[in-house]
This record gives sequence, structure tokens and C-alpha cells, in this order.
Amino acid sequence: MKFEVTNRDGQARRGTLTTPHGVVQTPAFMPVGTRGAVKAVTHRDLEDLGTDIILGNTYHLHLRPGDALIARAGGLHKFIGWPHPILTDSGGYQVFSLAAMRKVTEERVEFRSHLDGTLCALSPEKATDIQSQLGSDISMVLDECVAAEDGDRRSEVGESGISRVRAAMERSARWASRGRRRFLQLRNDPASAPDVLVTNPGQAQFGIVQGGTDHDLRTESVQRTREIGFDGYAIGGLSVGEPVTVMYDVVAHTTPLLPDGEPRYLMGTGMPDDLVECVARGIDMFDCVLPTRNARNGQLLTRNGVLVIKNLQYAEDREPPDPACGCYTCRHFSRAYLRHLYIAKEMAAAILMSVHNLYFYLDLMRGIRDAISFGSFEKLRSEFHQTFSRRQCST
Amino acid sequence: MKFEVTNRDGQARRGTLTTPHGVVQTPAFMPVGTRGAVKAVTHRDLEDLGTDIILGNTYHLHLRPGDALIARAGGLHKFIGWPHPILTDSGGYQVFSLAAMRKVTEERVEFRSHLDGTLCALSPEKATDIQSQLGSDISMVLDECVAAEDGDRRSEVGESGISRVRAAMERSARWASRGRRRFLQLRNDPASAPDVLVTNPGQAQFGIVQGGTDHDLRTESVQRTREIGFDGYAIGGLSVGEPVTVMYDVVAHTTPLLPDGEPRYLMGTGMPDDLVECVARGIDMFDCVLPTRNARNGQLLTRNGVLVIKNLQYAEDREPPDPACGCYTCRHFSRAYLRHLYIAKEMAAAILMSVHNLYFYLDLMRGIRDAISFGSFEKLRSEFHQTFSRRQCST
Repeated sequence: MKFEVTNRDGQARRGTLTTPHGVVQTPAFMPVGTRGAVKAVTHRDLEDLGTDIILGNTYHLHLRPGDALIARAGGLHKFIGWPHPILTDSGGYQVFSLAAMRKVTEERVEFRSHLDGTLCALSPEKATDIQSQLGSDISMVLDECVAAEDGDRRSEVGESGISRVRAAMERSARWASRGRRRFLQLRNDPASAPDVLVTNPGQAQFGIVQGGTDHDLRTESVQRTREIGFDGYAIGGLSVGEPVTVMYDVVAHTTPLLPDGEPRYLMGTGMPDDLVECVARGIDMFDCVLPTRNARNGQLLTRNGVLVIKNLQYAEDREPPDPACGCYTCRHFSRAYLRHLYIAKEMAAAILMSVHNLYFYLDLMRGIRDAISFGSFEKLRSEFHQTFSRRQCST
Repeated sequence: MKFEVTNRDGQARRGTLTTPHGVVQTPAFMPVGTRGAVKAVTHRDLEDLGTDIILGNTYHLHLRPGDALIARAGGLHKFIGWPHPILTDSGGYQVFSLAAMRKVTEERVEFRSHLDGTLCALSPEKATDIQSQLGSDISMVLDECVAAEDGDRRSEVGESGISRVRAAMERSARWASRGRRRFLQLRNDPASAPDVLVTNPGQAQFGIVQGGTDHDLRTESVQRTREIGFDGYAIGGLSVGEPVTVMYDVVAHTTPLLPDGEPRYLMGTGMPDDLVECVARGIDMFDCVLPTRNARNGQLLTRNGVLVIKNLQYAEDREPPDPACGCYTCRHFSRAYLRHLYIAKEMAAAILMSVHNLYFYLDLMRGIRDAISFGSFEKLRSEFHQTFSRRQCST
């Protein structure tokens, strides 16, 4: 993997990330293809939208259809028929948010599958092995995720007399070290792990900075993660319920501490204004389920804010969702028709609204990249905030 | 509307049907867009598949969002953003199969909406008015549909001392006369019906031949329907549970009685082999929910028969659904991936399998039209039956 920063505008950077399956233009937004498909759209739609890279969830793919089956098919790219870059998460976030019964030890985390209750376990080595079998272009190291409520109670003193957030950060650093060691073993000496089918020898691995909303813990986490050394660095443990201003502060504190020459990925974020604000603070990569999940719930994201399609005011509205938008949905369909489809529970509602929301995100990132090239990012940022609101649009 | 038969091969005919929204190549298959959307696909997918014409359901659109709302938007084409030909049914079939509480009188049929129990009524005039507001290119006259079980008990003597099937056929003929009169009134003197918004002045109207499986009743129904005179003729009341050989016999009996210069539409049929067999008996147009409904149920139609994707044998099958098929799904995805999507209940499963099944139907019709042009329809027919089976494929 090769990362090159080509333009800078303040802290914002434009660059290219070259992977074994193609080039990703950064700052990039990665649609989430949880189980090997971005919900309600086809790969053809994603290509038409200009998607450079998608994200796959290791937890879901490990449970079903299984990484061994995917490896036998030649890896995730071949299995799902997506020839472009893929990033996989470590599975940790889902284990800590979705699985039933979790038992975390220094060695590993045990959990029961949310599908059928099967007892499973994930260790730093196992998370690396699974992603090696999936053969994503970018794999993530396993970290210990602290739940949002734990973050709120971070003054509490828990195990070993230190705060839960510090304990998770420190364990994440130790796990990162083990995950990296395993990754380098699979890269340099795959024969030493005959049970692991390495389907993408050019796979990269990112470390994850933890530490909640505590700047000192973030600083320490960056130091320990950099010492290990990764191909890129993610900021984890944000967008978990804290106020956005706190998130922005943590990002602003953390990015200058990260190496300048490696990509920086803010995990699980966020609303469109979060993307603009975090690019301004030096982030290169984002992922979030929000555009597709909101689409399925009838919420269209537009440059004026959130349009709730079921509202009666749209029953005879012949305007497209966003008259200034160039997506397939806005070029062809009215709010009235989309409202009808949504109320009738037609699958086309989810498809067409997902196409719009993803286009809105990807087009925003295109605009951001252009603005950085032309040194006009601050202009884009202030114009964006002049129209965008998180509240419902009135029109 | 203009219909021209351009090629003949036995009873099979190839032709062009010119409507206000474009030309339909016949024999044609019409995907069913029940509520203004073909389930699980977008209009873009339909265009890519080579769809000339879709069908909309008057019953569903009348109940929600309402034909008056659609008329205010400029008609169904504009409301749903489909600029190509549309045929609408009369609503009768759904009233007789879907609605709760039906009361049929000579004047009209009263029923309760399956959505919310609202008391509604449909008469020959009302069915014409609704379709006039929808502005489809081809509208259908209201007929009285005899349920399949009534067809089985057609020896029973019911109202007025005549069989249920005869009674329904006779009432359908009287209703056809009223429907045609209303249609001509709206066409020739729209000012006389100020409450009806005629959104497509070039709309055509088809009559429907009834009479169950009784050849004499079919003959009489054709005579009475031809006497009224329509722009095209449909065969209704088939594919309602009778054996296919009986259906083929009724079609073979009926089509030679219909005018040669008008299109012939077999309503609600059917399996791929039905299409081949009924083209051989002189049918020009078909519609059926089968390709999209079966897709959502995980059944792929291929030239070898029905492939049930959930079967364990496909878990690691890297072949496309049909290696000889040129559709988007078969060009890009394996049975193993589609099985994974189906089992994980991903919407992409319904999308990709609907695309395949619709392509299979539309491509079959393309092949049939070509064969008729080249005088090789019988060759196509026998080759089709050599490989196609209604049973599950073994591979």
C-alpha cells in the first residue's frame, strides 16, 4: 500500500491511497457493506456513484458464510464480485455492541453469536487471521471497545485500580502489538501458519488509537500505537454518544500526533457536517452506516438538512429530493413518488433513497477533494454550514 | 394505437405495437409494477433489461396514492417517472382475489379495501375513469372474474338458472359494453365528464374474453366482445388453477376466433414454457408476477429449470446462476454469493435475482421474436423444451 498526500489546505489533506485493488482518492467515504453487500444497492449502483472503496464487517462475515469458505472462493473480492478496494474492520466493535454474553480476558474475548448463540472467541491473532483469509486491502487490528456509557463513567475506578477507559486503551495497545506481530508473520512467513489462507499478500494493516475523550490517554495511545508501527492509523472509540464538539476536540488533538505520511481513518463517523469538520482536522478516511440506514428509514440527507419523506407535505410534491443533486434518484423521481413507495413499503423506496444518500456523501467528498486542490476548502466549509442543518428541512 | 404484424411462423406472430409512449415489440412480456414500481428493481434496471412496457395495477393505485393524485401529477408515467408504455388492468382481478367482502350486482362490485377496510365500489364506468386518470397507454375493460374454485364447480347451477361461468361471461360482456361506451365518451367528448382528468388522450382499450374452460362459452364471449369492438383483445380467466394442457387448449381454441389485425393478450401467464406454448398459439402479450415473486422467494428461472438458491449444494458453487445467461447477475455473481445474500436476508438477493429472472423472461421473448422473423420458431420451441423443466435443476 502506498499513500501520497498531493494537496494541503490548512490541516485538510488530499491524497491517493494505492491498494492491490486500485486507487482510493482521499478524503474518502467508505459505504458499509456489512455482510458483503451495501444494503439495498448493487455493486453497479456503487460504481455508478463513484465508490472507490467499501467496508466489510469481519464479525458478520466470520459468522456467516465464514471466512474459511470465503478464502476457498479466493477471498472477499472474488466471493462478492467487487474488484475494487475493501477495508475490513476487526470484528471487535460488533463483538462489544452486538454479540450476547461477552467475557474479556487478556488473551481474548469470548462471545456468543447473535445469530444462533454459538460460543465464539476473538483474539488479536484470530482477528488478523480472519481478515487475512478475507483478503481485504486494509485490515484493522483488534481493539477493546469501551461502551459509550463506560466512557461517560470514565472517572470510575475499575479493574486494577485504573479507569475503564485507560484499561481498555492499554489492553488495546498490547493487543495491537500482538495483532501486528501476527500480521507480519503471515506476510513474511505464511508457511509458518498453514491453517491460514492468505488471499491478498498485499494487504495493509491499520492500528487504532483509543483513549475515550481524555486527551492525555489519546496522546499515550498514539505513542504506543506509533511505536508498534502500522501502515495507517485509525481513531476509534468516537461517535459513541459523546457531544460532537467533544469528538471534534479529540480529533483535533489526535491527528497532529499521528505520522504525516500515513492515512488517518476516523471510524464510524458520521453526519455530513462531521465529515467536513473532521477533514478540516486532518482526517483522510470515513465510514458510516448512516446514509444507507437513514435511507431505509425514509430520511433523505440533502444540503439543506434531513428530509423525512413520509411527511404529508410531500404527498403531491413534484420536486426531486434535492433539486441541486445530480444523483439518479433526483434526476428522475419526485418526493411524491418516493413518499408513495415508502408508505407502500416498496423495496424501490429503500433502493432509490440509499442511492441518493450515498451520492450525497460521495459527492460531498468529491467537492471536498476539489476544494483542497484549489485551496478553497474553508470556503466550502463555511458555505456547507450556511445551508446544512441536522434538523428536518422545512421544504 | 397502431398494431402491425410483421412476421408469421405458423400461428406465432411477430409485430410492433405503437403507443403514445413508444413502440412495444411483440410477442412481449410485461413486468408487473403493481404499485408503480416493479418489485426490487429500479426503472434503470428495467431499461437495461430491455423492458418495452410495464403493467400497473389499477386496484392498488386507486387505493393508494389514488388516481386523482396521480392525475394531478400528470398521469402515471409522470408520477412514477417511467416514460415508456404502460398497460393498466381494470382492478377487477384484485377486487375478486384480494379485497375483503365483495358484493356483486349488475350495476357494480362493492368491496372493502384490503388496506384499511374502506368501503369502495368499482363499476365498468368507474374502472374506465380511473384508468383514464392514470393515463396508461392500454387500459382494460372491467370483467367479472370467476374464482378458480368456481371454475372447478362450473357444472353447478347458480343465479338465474345458468352456470356461474356462463353468468360471469355474460355479465362481463354487458360490462364490456358499458366500459367501452364510457371509454368512447371520454375520448370523444371529455367535456361531458368534467370530474375525470384524461391524462393520456391516446389511450387504447382492450376487451377481455371470458368463459372459463368451456370452448362454447369462449366462442360466445369472443363474438360478443368483438361485436362491441376494442383496440385489442385479452384472454382472461386462465392461469387460475386449471391444468396447463387445458389452458393451452382454450388458448388454441380462442385465438383463431380473434381478429387477426389486433393484439392478443393472455392475462396473468405464466411459466416460461407457457409463454413459448402460447406464442405458438397466437398470443402477442403476456404479464406475470412470477419472475419477480419467485426471485424474492429464492427461485431462479434458468433454461434448465428452477434453481432453488438456498439449497446447501450451492454454498460453495462458484458458477453463476445460469452460465449461458448474459444478465448483470450472471455476468458478475456466483450461486454461492447469491445463496449467502438470500440466507442473510440482504435486499441485494431480491434485487439480483429479480434482475436475473426478468432478464430470462425478456431474453426468451427476444429469442422468440427473432425466431419468428427467421422462420425458426418451431426449432426454438423444441430446443426450449429439451432443456427446460418446471422441476428443480439438479445442477
